[in-house]
Amino acid sequence: MTNMPTINVTNQVKQVVVEDRFWKKYKMIVATKVIPYQWKALNNELPDTEPSNAIENFRIAANESSGKYYGTVFQDSDVAKWLETVAYSLRDFPNSNLEEKADEVIALLGRAQAEDGYLNTYYLLKEPNNRWTNLRDNHELYCAGHFIEAAVAYFETTGKSEFLNIVEKYVDLIDSVFGTEEGKINGYPGHEEIELALVKLYDVTANQKYLRLAQFFIEQRGQLPNYFTKEAEKRASIDTAPTWNDEENVNFGLGHEYQQAHLPVRQQKEAVGHAVRAMYLYVAMADIAAKSGDMSLKETCEFLWDDVINSKMYITAGIGSSVNGEAFTSKYDLPNDSMYCETCASVGLAFWANRMLRLDPNRKYADVLERAIYNGILSGMDLDGNRFFYVNPLEVNSFQKSRKDQEHVKTERQKWFFCACCPPNLSRMIASVEDNVYTQTDDTLFTHLYIAGKVNTVLSGQQVELIQSHNFPWEGDINVTVNVEGPVQFKLALRIPGWCHNVSAKVNGDTVSVEDLEKGYLVLDRVWNTGDTATLELDMPIMRVRSNPLVSMNQGQVALQRGPIVYCVEEVDNGMNLAAIRLPKESKIISRFEPDLLNGVVTLTAEGYQMESVDWLYCTEHTKLTPHNIKAIPYYAWCNREKGEMRVWIYEM
Amino acid sequence: MTNMPTINVTNQVKQVVVEDRFWKKYKMIVATKVIPYQWKALNNELPDTEPSNAIENFRIAANESSGKYYGTVFQDSDVAKWLETVAYSLRDFPNSNLEEKADEVIALLGRAQAEDGYLNTYYLLKEPNNRWTNLRDNHELYCAGHFIEAAVAYFETTGKSEFLNIVEKYVDLIDSVFGTEEGKINGYPGHEEIELALVKLYDVTANQKYLRLAQFFIEQRGQLPNYFTKEAEKRASIDTAPTWNDEENVNFGLGHEYQQAHLPVRQQKEAVGHAVRAMYLYVAMADIAAKSGDMSLKETCEFLWDDVINSKMYITAGIGSSVNGEAFTSKYDLPNDSMYCETCASVGLAFWANRMLRLDPNRKYADVLERAIYNGILSGMDLDGNRFFYVNPLEVNSFQKSRKDQEHVKTERQKWFFCACCPPNLSRMIASVEDNVYTQTDDTLFTHLYIAGKVNTVLSGQQVELIQSHNFPWEGDINVTVNVEGPVQFKLALRIPGWCHNVSAKVNGDTVSVEDLEKGYLVLDRVWNTGDTATLELDMPIMRVRSNPLVSMNQGQVALQRGPIVYCVEEVDNGMNLAAIRLPKESKIISRFEPDLLNGVVTLTAEGYQMESVDWLYCTEHTKLTPHNIKAIPYYAWCNREKGEMRVWIYEM
Repeated sequence: MTNMPTINVTNQVKQVVVEDRFWKKYKMIVATKVIPYQWKALNNELPDTEPSNAIENFRIAANESSGKYYGTVFQDSDVAKWLETVAYSLRDFPNSNLEEKADEVIALLGRAQAEDGYLNTYYLLKEPNNRWTNLRDNHELYCAGHFIEAAVAYFETTGKSEFLNIVEKYVDLIDSVFGTEEGKINGYPGHEEIELALVKLYDVTANQKYLRLAQFFIEQRGQLPNYFTKEAEKRASIDTAPTWNDEENVNFGLGHEYQQAHLPVRQQKEAVGHAVRAMYLYVAMADIAAKSGDMSLKETCEFLWDDVINSKMYITAGIGSSVNGEAFTSKYDLPNDSMYCETCASVGLAFWANRMLRLDPNRKYADVLERAIYNGILSGMDLDGNRFFYVNPLEVNSFQKSRKDQEHVKTERQKWFFCACCPPNLSRMIASVEDNVYTQTDDTLFTHLYIAGKVNTVLSGQQVELIQSHNFPWEGDINVTVNVEGPVQFKLALRIPGWCHNVSAKVNGDTVSVEDLEKGYLVLDRVWNTGDTATLELDMPIMRVRSNPLVSMNQGQVALQRGPIVYCVEEVDNGMNLAAIRLPKESKIISRFEPDLLNGVVTLTAEGYQMESVDWLYCTEHTKLTPHNIKAIPYYAWCNREKGEMRVWIYEM
Repeated sequence: MTNMPTINVTNQVKQVVVEDRFWKKYKMIVATKVIPYQWKALNNELPDTEPSNAIENFRIAANESSGKYYGTVFQDSDVAKWLETVAYSLRDFPNSNLEEKADEVIALLGRAQAEDGYLNTYYLLKEPNNRWTNLRDNHELYCAGHFIEAAVAYFETTGKSEFLNIVEKYVDLIDSVFGTEEGKINGYPGHEEIELALVKLYDVTANQKYLRLAQFFIEQRGQLPNYFTKEAEKRASIDTAPTWNDEENVNFGLGHEYQQAHLPVRQQKEAVGHAVRAMYLYVAMADIAAKSGDMSLKETCEFLWDDVINSKMYITAGIGSSVNGEAFTSKYDLPNDSMYCETCASVGLAFWANRMLRLDPNRKYADVLERAIYNGILSGMDLDGNRFFYVNPLEVNSFQKSRKDQEHVKTERQKWFFCACCPPNLSRMIASVEDNVYTQTDDTLFTHLYIAGKVNTVLSGQQVELIQSHNFPWEGDINVTVNVEGPVQFKLALRIPGWCHNVSAKVNGDTVSVEDLEKGYLVLDRVWNTGDTATLELDMPIMRVRSNPLVSMNQGQVALQRGPIVYCVEEVDNGMNLAAIRLPKESKIISRFEPDLLNGVVTLTAEGYQMESVDWLYCTEHTKLTPHNIKAIPYYAWCNREKGEMRVWIYEM
C-alpha cells in the first residue's frame, strides 16, 4: 500500500440489532427454515432434489467415509455459505445446538484439510495432482474465498478461532503459491471471490499479507499475456478432467470478458461477462480502493457503477440479461422474459453498493442497495423459505414453455438446484442485512437503510445508541431515537431516498430544513442528548416508472413502485394475458395494506381495462376494452399463491 | 382413391404470361442474375462463400471425377431447385445456352443414377449400403421430391422427357421399396416434399401409382408404432454416419412433432414442428384431398390453416417463431427479434395457400398468398439478386449482436449459405409466380392475384384470353380485358382483397354491384364479347394494423400496411433507436411513389415524434418528444441501402 489514502472512507458499523417487522420475519425464516433445510440439502436429505453431497465430500476427504466426489466443482462453497449464514444468524438467534453442529462441520473441514493447508475436496478427491492447473474453470480460489468469508463471520459472532486458523493455514499456502515472484503462479481466479474475502480476513487479523494477496489478484487480472490463455496451453500437456467450460465454445463465446480478464481492471470501463463474477470483482476493487486510497481504482468503480446502474440493471435490481454465460449484454438490452437476473447477481450488486457507500456515502449507492434487497434478492425465495429462484424473470407468459431460448426461466420456485449457489447466498444476505444499514466516520453516522432496530457505536469518542422505529417499507414515517450517557456532538446523516420527492424532518418535534442535502443525506450536526429524536416523514407516492427510450422492450409501459418496492401483476389477481391489461394515464392508483395477504403487504389497485379477446391475429380495428380492476403486489412476493403469468411492466394508455 | 369426390376442385391455370412491372423486374433478376449466380454456387465458383459442391457430387457419383462427397445431406436438392427455376424461367426468357446447360446437368444426373434407378449422391458416395436407413434425418425422399418437381417443370416447359424418365425410374424403385405390403418399408420422409412432388408427377403422367405412393406416405405419417422410433432402434445395429440430429437432444427436444409425425395426419389440429416441413406436408394433404375428395383431409387442412393464420403467422407471412428446430411454438408467440421466419417457410406457406385455393376459392387463402409473395418471401433477396436472407427478422436492433439467442439473425443479407435451401426456393417461386394468379372450373375463372399480363385458357369450351393491366401493388385500379373468338358465357370471379374495404367495379364502363361477393370474389357471370372490360377500383388506404391482445410483444404498436405491402422503418431514414419513435394516433400518413428509390416504391411518411435521449435508465418523468418525420418503406425492400436498425411494429401514441 504505497499511496497515501486520499479517500474519506466510512466504516462498516457492526453492532446492529434488527427489530424490524419486515426483516425480522425473514431472518426468523432463515434461522428456523432455511438453515435446517439447507443443512438437509448439504447432507442429501431432501427428497426429490439433486443430491448435494457437499458434507459427504469432506468426510471422504477426511478419510471418514468412502465413495466418490460428487457435485459441481464448487460444491465446497455451499458448505461455506451455510456456515457463514449460521454465523450471522447466531447473532440474532443464539442456538447452542446449531453452533455445535457448525463446530462439528468446522472440525470436519480441519480434518479434511491437507497437511500443507490445502482445502478443496474436488481436487483432494478427484485430481490430487492437478491443484492450481485450471484457475479459469475450477473455482479453487473461489471456494477458498467462501471459506474465508465464513471463517471471519464465525469468528466475529462466536469469538472461536478454529475456523479462522484453518483458513489462515490455507491462505498461507495460497500466498506461497501465488505471486509475481519467480516460481510462483501469477494467475488469478476465474471466478472472483477470494479477493473480497481476503480483505475481510485482513480486517479481522490486521495481517497485511492478506491485503497484499488480494491486491495481487486484482492487479494481475487482465494483464498480458493473458494468464488463462497461458494456463490453457500448459494444461494441454497434463491429464485433467473435462470441465463445464465447453472447449468448442470457451467461455460461452464471450472471450476473456466472461471472467472480466480481458483488460487490466483500471482499463475496464464497461461491465461485461458473468454478472456474479463481475460483482465480486467490483466489490474487491472498491475494498482495495478504500484500503489503499487508490483514486484510479475508485474512479474505475464509479465508471462501472454508472454503466451497470444506468444501462444494464433491471428495475428489480436484477442484472445479467442473457442466459449465455449468465452475463451482461449490450447497454439497454433488458428483455423481461429471457433474461437471467440470477439471485446471486443481485446479492453481489448489494455487496457492491455496500462497498461503494463505504468509499463515498452517496445516496445513489444506497438507493440501489435498497432496490436490490427489497426486490431482486428477496424474490429469490418464497415466503416460507422452502423454494428458490435462481433466475428471476420480470415476465412470465404463456409462451415460455415452448421457447427453448427461455428454458432456463423457471416459472415457479424450485426446491433446490444442482448448482445451488443462490439459496445460500440469499440466506447469508438476509441473515446479515443489518450490516448494510449504517456506515460511520469518527463523528458521523450515516443511516443508509431504514430497518428498525438499534445500533451501538462510538461517535466522537462516546458510546451512542440509536434506535430506528417505523413500519418501513410500507410506511414512510421514520423515527430515530438517540441514547447517550451525556451530551455528544455528532452528525446524524439520514438518507433521503431517491424515490422520495417530498420529505419533512423534525428534531425533537421541531421542523428542520431539508433543503441542503449532502449527496442525498440530511446531516443533523448537533449536540445530542439522550432521548433526542429525529423524525422523517418520507412521502411514499405510487410511482409510474418509465424506461429510457433505448430500452425497446419496455416502451409504452410503466412499472409501479411505492417506496423501494417494485410491483408486479399476477394472473391470480388479474386473470390471464397480462399483456392485454391497460392502465390509463389518469387512473388513480390506490395503496392499501393487506395484513393477511402474503405475510402482510401493501397492494396497489387501479381502475383500468383489459382488451377483449378476439378471433383475429391482425386487424385495423381497435380492440374493445373491458373495465378491469388492476391489482399489483410486491414483486418479491410473486408466485406465492397460484402458478401463472406475471408481469412487472404494464401497458399504459 | 375410393371416395367419390365431393369437393368442387378448381384447377391450376398454366398459360399465364407476366407483363407486370413489379414482377417482371424480379423475374428478369432471377433470369439474368440469380440463375447464373446460383450456377456458380453449385459449381463452387463463388468467392468467399461456403462451397456447395453439388454438381461435383454428381460428377463423382457418375465416375467422372474423383474426390469426396461434400455438403449437407440434401445437397442434391439445390441442383434440383436450380433446374426447376431454370424450367420456369425459360417460359419467360427462352435461352438456348441455358437450356443446353440444363440438359447437360440432366444428362449428368442420368449418368449418376444407379442401375436400379437410385439417385442420391450422399448415399451413393458416402453410405452406399445404408439406403433408406435414416428417413428421419437424411432427406433421401426429400431430394427425390425436388428432382420430381424439377423434372415435371422441365417437361412442361420444354416438352423434353429425359429428366422425367430419370425420375420415373427412381420413383419406380421407391415404389418397390415403400409400402404396407410385407417386406416393404412402411416409413415416410423425415422432411416432407416427395408427397407433393408425386402429385405433380401424377398430374403430368396420369399414372395412378404415383398418387397412391403420395397417399401412402401421407397416411403412414404418425401411425403407431412410430416409424422413426422403430427405425432408430434398427439403426443401432448397423454402421451409419452421424447426422445433424443430435442424439442427446433428438429433434431439438420437440419429439416427433418436429417432423409432424406425432399423430396420424387427420388428428393433427395444430401446426407444430419445423415450419417448412409442416408447409410441405399441408400442401400434399390439400393435394390429396383435392384428388381423392377426402373431406376429412380437407377439414384437417382448414383446421391447420386457421391455427397458422390466426395465431402463428407474422404480419409479413413469416412463420416459425423459434430457431430451435426452425419451428412453430405456442399460439401468439411472435417475437420480432428472435424469430426464425425462414424464407423457405413463407414460400411453403404460399404453396399451401395456392393448394387451398384449388380446394376452395376463398379470398382468405389468396390474402395470405399475396401477403407471402409481397412480404416474407421477397424480403429473402436483395433488389439485385445477389444477397439472401435465410431468417427474416421483423426487428433489427442494437442488441442482437450481443445476444447468443439471436445469433441466427443476420442483420444483413448473405452471399450464400452452407444450408442453401432458401435462395433457390425463393427463385423458383418468383420464376413461377404466375402459376398462382388463376384457378378455374369449366365455366369460371378465378383471379386470385393482380399480376399484370395475359392468360389463355378454355372456359365453357371456348378459348378465352384475359389481359390484366394495372400498376399493382402500388395502385388499386385494375383493368381486365377479355378476348374471345365469339361471345362466350363464363364467370369471371375477381378477388376483392381482404385489405380493401372500399371497391367499385365496372363492366364496359357500367357500374356493377359489389354487394354480393362469393367468398370474397366478385363473380361477373355474363356473355363476354371480345374487348369487354372489367375494371376494379380497389381503395388502398394506409392501414394501421394491430395485433391480437395475446401477442404480448406487439401491444401498443402498429404495423403500417398499404394494399398487400407491409412497411417497416429503417435507420437510414429514421435515425437510430427506432423503438423511440412515436406515431401519434391522429397523424396523417401520406403515401408517395418514389420512382428512384429501391427500384420504385410507394413510401409512407407521417409527422411523429422521437423520444429524446436521456441519461437515466428509469424515471417517473415523461421523456420529452422531439418532432420527427417518420418514413416507412416496404418491408421486402429493407436492407438495400445502409445496414442498420429496422422495425415493422412502431409504437403508437
